[in-house]
Amino acid sequence: MPDLGFHTYGKTRVRLLQVLRDRRAHDIADLNVSVLFEGDLAESYTGGDNSLVLPTDTIKNTIYVLARQHPFSSIEEFGLILGRHFLDRLGHLAIVRVAINETLWERIANHTTAFVQSSKEHRTAELRLTREAQSIVSGIRNLQILKTAHSAFFGYLKDEYTTLAETRDRLLGTVLDADWTFAGSAVHNFNELHRSVRAELLDCFAVHESLSVQHTLHAMAEAVLAKFDAIQNIHLTMPNKHCLLVDLSRFGLDNPNQIFVPTDEPSGFIEARLSR
Amino acid sequence: MPDLGFHTYGKTRVRLLQVLRDRRAHDIADLNVSVLFEGDLAESYTGGDNSLVLPTDTIKNTIYVLARQHPFSSIEEFGLILGRHFLDRLGHLAIVRVAINETLWERIANHTTAFVQSSKEHRTAELRLTREAQSIVSGIRNLQILKTAHSAFFGYLKDEYTTLAETRDRLLGTVLDADWTFAGSAVHNFNELHRSVRAELLDCFAVHESLSVQHTLHAMAEAVLAKFDAIQNIHLTMPNKHCLLVDLSRFGLDNPNQIFVPTDEPSGFIEARLSR
Amino acid sequence: MPDLGFHTYGKTRVRLLQVLRDRRAHDIADLNVSVLFEGDLAESYTGGDNSLVLPTDTIKNTIYVLARQHPFSSIEEFGLILGRHFLDRLGHLAIVRVAINETLWERIANHTTAFVQSSKEHRTAELRLTREAQSIVSGIRNLQILKTAHSAFFGYLKDEYTTLAETRDRLLGTVLDADWTFAGSAVHNFNELHRSVRAELLDCFAVHESLSVQHTLHAMAEAVLAKFDAIQNIHLTMPNKHCLLVDLSRFGLDNPNQIFVPTDEPSGFIEARLSR
Amino acid sequence: MPDLGFHTYGKTRVRLLQVLRDRRAHDIADLNVSVLFEGDLAESYTGGDNSLVLPTDTIKNTIYVLARQHPFSSIEEFGLILGRHFLDRLGHLAIVRVAINETLWERIANHTTAFVQSSKEHRTAELRLTREAQSIVSGIRNLQILKTAHSAFFGYLKDEYTTLAETRDRLLGTVLDADWTFAGSAVHNFNELHRSVRAELLDCFAVHESLSVQHTLHAMAEAVLAKFDAIQNIHLTMPNKHCLLVDLSRFGLDNPNQIFVPTDEPSGFIEARLSR
Repeated sequence: MPDLGFHTYGKTRVRLLQVLRDRRAHDIADLNVSVLFEGDLAESYTGGDNSLVLPTDTIKNTIYVLARQHPFSSIEEFGLILGRHFLDRLGHLAIVRVAINETLWERIANHTTAFVQSSKEHRTAELRLTREAQSIVSGIRNLQILKTAHSAFFGYLKDEYTTLAETRDRLLGTVLDADWTFAGSAVHNFNELHRSVRAELLDCFAVHESLSVQHTLHAMAEAVLAKFDAIQNIHLTMPNKHCLLVDLSRFGLDNPNQIFVPTDEPSGFIEARLSR
Repeated sequence: MPDLGFHTYGKTRVRLLQVLRDRRAHDIADLNVSVLFEGDLAESYTGGDNSLVLPTDTIKNTIYVLARQHPFSSIEEFGLILGRHFLDRLGHLAIVRVAINETLWERIANHTTAFVQSSKEHRTAELRLTREAQSIVSGIRNLQILKTAHSAFFGYLKDEYTTLAETRDRLLGTVLDADWTFAGSAVHNFNELHRSVRAELLDCFAVHESLSVQHTLHAMAEAVLAKFDAIQNIHLTMPNKHCLLVDLSRFGLDNPNQIFVPTDEPSGFIEARLSR
Repeated sequence: MPDLGFHTYGKTRVRLLQVLRDRRAHDIADLNVSVLFEGDLAESYTGGDNSLVLPTDTIKNTIYVLARQHPFSSIEEFGLILGRHFLDRLGHLAIVRVAINETLWERIANHTTAFVQSSKEHRTAELRLTREAQSIVSGIRNLQILKTAHSAFFGYLKDEYTTLAETRDRLLGTVLDADWTFAGSAVHNFNELHRSVRAELLDCFAVHESLSVQHTLHAMAEAVLAKFDAIQNIHLTMPNKHCLLVDLSRFGLDNPNQIFVPTDEPSGFIEARLSR
Repeated sequence: MPDLGFHTYGKTRVRLLQVLRDRRAHDIADLNVSVLFEGDLAESYTGGDNSLVLPTDTIKNTIYVLARQHPFSSIEEFGLILGRHFLDRLGHLAIVRVAINETLWERIANHTTAFVQSSKEHRTAELRLTREAQSIVSGIRNLQILKTAHSAFFGYLKDEYTTLAETRDRLLGTVLDADWTFAGSAVHNFNELHRSVRAELLDCFAVHESLSVQHTLHAMAEAVLAKFDAIQNIHLTMPNKHCLLVDLSRFGLDNPNQIFVPTDEPSGFIEARLSR
């Protein structure tokens, strides 16, 4: 008889648009929500016993009900509402994980009820609740950034397969994914913190005298930890989306860092976690 | 013997990032370029005679060369440079079509050499050059917009399969694609025009008392033609990206236009062209 | 007052899975359906008069109703049922266009009620019905094919920007899109014809002594017209998905057409239509 | 000073097409390769010291060189070659992870040098090598399967938000991701094992009298462990891609499990790992 190890189930990709109308200017939140359960559920796998299986369709309905009953101001807050509801109600669950991915909109000019989707970037919250503890991780996904100065790469290890030329002036582009974990449960202003952390990451990226993606990633993470006491650790992934200088010398032309080919693949990949 | 009708070839998806460094603040243009040829090319199809086939690899090289030789300030301008080059040089071509799709970036805060990709939206230019004429079409792709007021849909045709409820207050969301054709060749400030047309489309979308997507599409197109004499016609597609009000009455709750499910499919689809 | 030119509306991306259970082995059809209307609809744009606007939600409902009432054996047949229904019922319509995209499944081994999605390839039908005529176009989308022999490219036009080396032995890969139009209305066995045309296209691709993508595209189209009298014309697009030979001479190694980099961009692009 | 925790870097999305020509019929392997390093690399993050950083561009070059020097017959074998090369050569590395994703092609009919991409499905290998041990995980990604019989869901937990109807006959569709870990290092015939495991998963899916996705997932995993001694554990994720029965009773029609709407979102999600 095999051993059933890690197992989970739940509902993913539940889309929800909340319109808050209690002020003259509407506010919208455009979410993609996942809720996953872990707990005393082995019988549903081994014997098809569904008596402790709340249908994922019910999870979906509950997400809409709770959104109506508890209008929320941040995805972290809504995640806590969802997680606690299921833990409180279902004694056979040990862990509830909630992941919320927010698509970002901003108002069109000074109009109060019209919006334009402002970015490919997403804001995320990932929560893990047990009966004893809860962790909240806030994040950014798919933030495409590029710097055209203050980036070098030289002095690296070389072997017989190394053909890359050293450079003191290259483009540095990446698609930033960032996650930060809060130190305690005292955080309240998740929206303001998200704005501030994002601004700090971008500022540091812009001004850093980069010797490598690793170097800049570390500086960005360090800057966030230095500035925000509420953050316990931060995890960044920064693929190196190479912009290749086009060789125009074949055509009798120079190319003083002016014409590049941006590429999607292959891609460098850099990832690290820094803790306080 | 079958008849060879319409035929074309060329290079698509040539990516090019231009960095302009002649001012203290860098400027970047991130393009995806296509160039397609039509002309006296039938022999290459019917007999494999390549003597008039300029390789698509050469088209790609030429795009980079011309970008270096003629730093451009708008994609429309670069498209003209490309199209004229090939028409001038290759006597067997009758038509050159150039399509350029620009990914949009903006500066990070007040930093002069760091950028963040600002939107899923793209700016486009499509040019068609012959020896006698040229047409320039500027456009917008994938502009995601949503209004939470001033939108109704009622009084429509009903049959026995109609279950949709009439509404005086619904969400109206779409992914706007827009193209406008210039009346003559006197246009120069393509960038300024693009900004202004985009702003006009958004403003009209925001304030229009909409009776249907068709109604709002027409108002938006009409507003652009009324304001910009240089534009001969405008073509809009506005899929209706439905936001469905969640029925919470099953759970003893009302839902005063607060909780919606945004959906990708099925989708309404509305398209029209207006001419001066 | 601007002139309202081409205009259309309808429903797109209506997904429908039909399970036919009247035999011991089930059959499934997995469709994505669009229906678009043209006709006397200008008032809905100019004045917001919806009295002739059948809601796109009703179009969706009708697609499901007609599928239930008329179990279909091919997407072309279902497209005709849909198009005729709307034309018959709505006197203000001049044109109904139906597009159906079928996702392909095959049975798992010899099991009668279990299926595996067999390909990225899609089968398509595009119909245009008026009160006087109807056209049916059958097609293939996204058929990824590659040949590792019998492909050359030499003798082409060269200029000072040409760096491509001539070759008598290259890889030739493409993503075939094909559409063929039927000569009359006498066709009945759309499924059998689809299988046969697809096989002919693949066979010709495999054996053709290719001097260019254009050359092979023409041979494939010609072979279909030669074999199938019911087909009036055929339209193929064959982007050249380049596989680049890796230069290993820098590392003291040869590379006898063994190690390649497949690339998505840039891409050659070849398109032509052949008629009887 | 913050603490640098987990950190890794490397190259991802290196595409490689290998053509084996030593038999009359060619064979191709179409791979997407990632190689990631862990080890004594902290200085590159904290101080921008690149002296132990082998450029990711060199990793890419090495992948092509090793493919030429060691023509491989399975992705697992190629992964081992890559991992050992870097571990042997770079003493500061502690862990090398290699992930290879293979796009699947099959021959066109009985042609020896022409291929058609056969599926959206991918075959994967993920290897983790240290100086003491190596683990090899083989897998399947994106295998879309659907059964139209032998699937029920009833007897589940209900609360006041449960509206789902119990059913003894529903469609069950999923997109299977599977990973299996080998017990020792004695495995050689990875290709044959992959085919056999895949067939076993499909067979079990087809015939299982399913009481839930969990139930079927468990049966599939159990069947693999029962049949293949070389496999130590298996991990499956099976999102429930709901096919919703269309309610046609509003239109006076029944719908005896014939017309469904397949949906992408929301989606159930089921995941488990079984060990010997």
